[in-house]
Amino acid sequence: MCLKPGATDVADVARHLLDELTARGVAFVLDPQAAAILGGEGVERGALAEKADMLIVIGGDGTLLAVAREAGARPIPILGVNQGTLGFLAEVAPEELDAVLDQVLAGSLDVVLRTRLRVRAMRGDEELMQVLALNDAVINRSDLSRMIDVETWTNGEPVTVYRGDGLIVATPTGSTAYTLSAGGPILMPGSRALVLTPICPHGLSQRPVVVPDTSRIEMHVFPREGTAQLTLDGQVAMTLESGDRVLVEASEHPAHFVVSPFRSRFDVLRSKLGWGRA
Amino acid sequence: MCLKPGATDVADVARHLLDELTARGVAFVLDPQAAAILGGEGVERGALAEKADMLIVIGGDGTLLAVAREAGARPIPILGVNQGTLGFLAEVAPEELDAVLDQVLAGSLDVVLRTRLRVRAMRGDEELMQVLALNDAVINRSDLSRMIDVETWTNGEPVTVYRGDGLIVATPTGSTAYTLSAGGPILMPGSRALVLTPICPHGLSQRPVVVPDTSRIEMHVFPREGTAQLTLDGQVAMTLESGDRVLVEASEHPAHFVVSPFRSRFDVLRSKLGWGRA
Amino acid sequence: MCLKPGATDVADVARHLLDELTARGVAFVLDPQAAAILGGEGVERGALAEKADMLIVIGGDGTLLAVAREAGARPIPILGVNQGTLGFLAEVAPEELDAVLDQVLAGSLDVVLRTRLRVRAMRGDEELMQVLALNDAVINRSDLSRMIDVETWTNGEPVTVYRGDGLIVATPTGSTAYTLSAGGPILMPGSRALVLTPICPHGLSQRPVVVPDTSRIEMHVFPREGTAQLTLDGQVAMTLESGDRVLVEASEHPAHFVVSPFRSRFDVLRSKLGWGRA
Amino acid sequence: MCLKPGATDVADVARHLLDELTARGVAFVLDPQAAAILGGEGVERGALAEKADMLIVIGGDGTLLAVAREAGARPIPILGVNQGTLGFLAEVAPEELDAVLDQVLAGSLDVVLRTRLRVRAMRGDEELMQVLALNDAVINRSDLSRMIDVETWTNGEPVTVYRGDGLIVATPTGSTAYTLSAGGPILMPGSRALVLTPICPHGLSQRPVVVPDTSRIEMHVFPREGTAQLTLDGQVAMTLESGDRVLVEASEHPAHFVVSPFRSRFDVLRSKLGWGRA
Repeated sequence: MCLKPGATDVADVARHLLDELTARGVAFVLDPQAAAILGGEGVERGALAEKADMLIVIGGDGTLLAVAREAGARPIPILGVNQGTLGFLAEVAPEELDAVLDQVLAGSLDVVLRTRLRVRAMRGDEELMQVLALNDAVINRSDLSRMIDVETWTNGEPVTVYRGDGLIVATPTGSTAYTLSAGGPILMPGSRALVLTPICPHGLSQRPVVVPDTSRIEMHVFPREGTAQLTLDGQVAMTLESGDRVLVEASEHPAHFVVSPFRSRFDVLRSKLGWGRA
Repeated sequence: MCLKPGATDVADVARHLLDELTARGVAFVLDPQAAAILGGEGVERGALAEKADMLIVIGGDGTLLAVAREAGARPIPILGVNQGTLGFLAEVAPEELDAVLDQVLAGSLDVVLRTRLRVRAMRGDEELMQVLALNDAVINRSDLSRMIDVETWTNGEPVTVYRGDGLIVATPTGSTAYTLSAGGPILMPGSRALVLTPICPHGLSQRPVVVPDTSRIEMHVFPREGTAQLTLDGQVAMTLESGDRVLVEASEHPAHFVVSPFRSRFDVLRSKLGWGRA
Repeated sequence: MCLKPGATDVADVARHLLDELTARGVAFVLDPQAAAILGGEGVERGALAEKADMLIVIGGDGTLLAVAREAGARPIPILGVNQGTLGFLAEVAPEELDAVLDQVLAGSLDVVLRTRLRVRAMRGDEELMQVLALNDAVINRSDLSRMIDVETWTNGEPVTVYRGDGLIVATPTGSTAYTLSAGGPILMPGSRALVLTPICPHGLSQRPVVVPDTSRIEMHVFPREGTAQLTLDGQVAMTLESGDRVLVEASEHPAHFVVSPFRSRFDVLRSKLGWGRA
Repeated sequence: MCLKPGATDVADVARHLLDELTARGVAFVLDPQAAAILGGEGVERGALAEKADMLIVIGGDGTLLAVAREAGARPIPILGVNQGTLGFLAEVAPEELDAVLDQVLAGSLDVVLRTRLRVRAMRGDEELMQVLALNDAVINRSDLSRMIDVETWTNGEPVTVYRGDGLIVATPTGSTAYTLSAGGPILMPGSRALVLTPICPHGLSQRPVVVPDTSRIEMHVFPREGTAQLTLDGQVAMTLESGDRVLVEASEHPAHFVVSPFRSRFDVLRSKLGWGRA
């Protein structure tokens, strides 16, 4: 068991967690960010995910995205604790932590599988990058390119050329992130699907398209001038040149998230999005 | 084998089809609408679907929707032939009919399963109606009710109260119909999902929600005044009173459509929606 | 000076207002709805608007819409007092009423002119109705017509045929009402413009169009079957038949609203729409 | 009179125009781009606009945007000739040029005034740039900043903080350009208004806002990290740092465009946007 805070303002929650773990006789390991705050030796997140039985992450959704990406393929359960503000991923509030710990140790909590994207960037035969993304892969124009064309295929079949600021491929988890701002729908966890959302498309009849999560999505990127950019989970970015290809498909290694017993997915949506309650 | 035209302007295509079937030695039965045009005795569509090996439907998407609904639960393949204008469902052009017939008889054509909705309207314990819908179930305000509230649950869990002109539950097949006009995404066939799209929602943060097609959706209808309306596939309508419930889930009896060998699903979308080609 | 409450739950605010007016030596007249609650003789709103120096309206936005419509062409200032919930039009809170009264009597409050629509429904040469609307004129399909065509002209020049659920013509005041739910922009007061917003348009490239408020807008209504409906401010409705015409232009008689000294227009928008503050 | 082509594929139209001008005894001057193609001495566009009676521009909308910006404050009529494809601004087709020339020389063509934005970028007391833009001023995040905050005021009054990819301020002329892709409405020429459209806003209740063209709009730019970018008409760009301010108001020097006698503004919209005809 381990702890992965991202900033000093999580120190109090983290120290409380250490006390609780110690009191319950649970061994734990810290990642480098946690060690920097709490003292002791840190273990890199990838190595840590190899050994631990669970990852407890204290921080916001951004920290959880980074951990889920860096934890790699292993199906280790991730428990997200927020710093007082409900997140889409960090569902457990600090004051709920003790009760959740008891249920975790009693083995009575559910785990939900969250689809991750396996994203590969290719230049000719060369693989430029391969990343597991939990939220989304975003291709967009760079500062100097007014518009880009993204020729898109699924399962080898042409979809369309998206012309505009770019294209988002998002998982159900990512459907409440950037694609929502770009006009995309919300995909409930369990809807075995991905969504392709054009960003400020030039063609007014372009609309978000939901495809089965068995789809192999291939995108060829053609900036009108200059370069384009590929961004994963809003955190990892690289430059694309004209003709580069981005291949996206659902990974066979979904992330495993511990489900909060205190709120349903729709509770989270209603709270975060300001919906009324049924 | 049978023929189901809906109007006199399909008579030429229908007569040509009869000649082709006769020439190939294929027995066929007409539905009443076909018999009215071509002569002979018509058999009701429900009964016809019980006996025939395939339903050939000549007409627009509206005719295909009606046939798919009336054909009932049996998994009979449906072949849609249009009258010269490509439809979302009526993919085969009259001039392609002969070639498609040959492939059908050779058993070389694919069939795609299209999810249908089992829609039940309830008043207290009384079932008011039960229908299989291929496109959508639409709850909307009637002329005299300025706004309606639709309290919505999936799998017994509250989603939200949709306040506005109403709510659409659509299949992937229906995702290019009314929900698209209301701002919904396109769901590719095979995305085992349904989409809930609010119609002119009062709350600006309301967005289309995609749910797994295993979801049981329950909607309680509360017009602010007067009544509301339930419409299936834009063709069958009934009046709802305050407190009536509409239950929607994917039927275990999907419709079986013969896939045109001449165009992919994205070909149809590009053509119908005016998209550019990849 | 007069009072126009619409419901018994405004009685306390109304009684307080009467006391304050009496204490300040201001004469007042009640409308029938106020008289029903407070006792005494009521005077019809139209007649009342002829005689009074100001209309004080206690109620929600709906009451203010009705009063503004019924008050007719005369440029009488209207002061909207809400029942505890901020309205788009009823900006003054009950607890602010005394301070506002003092400023009104001192002549130190501003009045903003709000464009009203002069809406005429025509059948051949016959004028079916003529109404002054503060928010919007809405043409929409009725329960039985799946879709309507609205052929639209401005200043005698063809715009397009809107096909779908209908068309909204809204003033800046009405731009935060129904058209906003249908995807229209917000028009700040003072933007001498009207907005045409299609409702669930069949064509995906149809977008809201903002026209100068000097435009004469003419709409010819063609339901695909059955009838259509014309609704003014969500309160007055009539049935339209195929071929009926609706003529809309900005009236030369705008409504005069007293501006609350306690909040700007953007304060109201931020509060009602849940925007963040600059 | 002068000619301003931007590329060699306009040479034929340009040569034909020179012949026609010569045949009609009309003196003309070339800009450097025209001189490079047709030979002779070119005069810078700004100087040329000082002397000529009309600017004839052969090219696409991009060329017209550049000319309108570079021509400066003087109210010189601009005639836009396209290269065979109708533009929003370049309305005159090559084959219509002779007839239009005759009408121009007969003084029988109308001129429409198109609002231009006076855009100033400020850092503290320093003015970084001042530009006249015909379409739009766009503030957006740069490659490295995930999100920017744009605190916005009109006439000194706070509007809101736009959080997301950025904010567009567009004229009616620019309303069919980038803002349309971002979800903004179309503003007809003559609607004395500007539109503020957020780009992929984080808050779902953010909507385009139309303001009177007498508004002074002030935007303070705060990238979450890194820098932001200011782009005028999609052609002139500069980098903004945190705290930089962008001031936008309608210039008192609108552009003067010669109106094509062959098509109305709605003809252009219907053709460019694929609308049906009334």
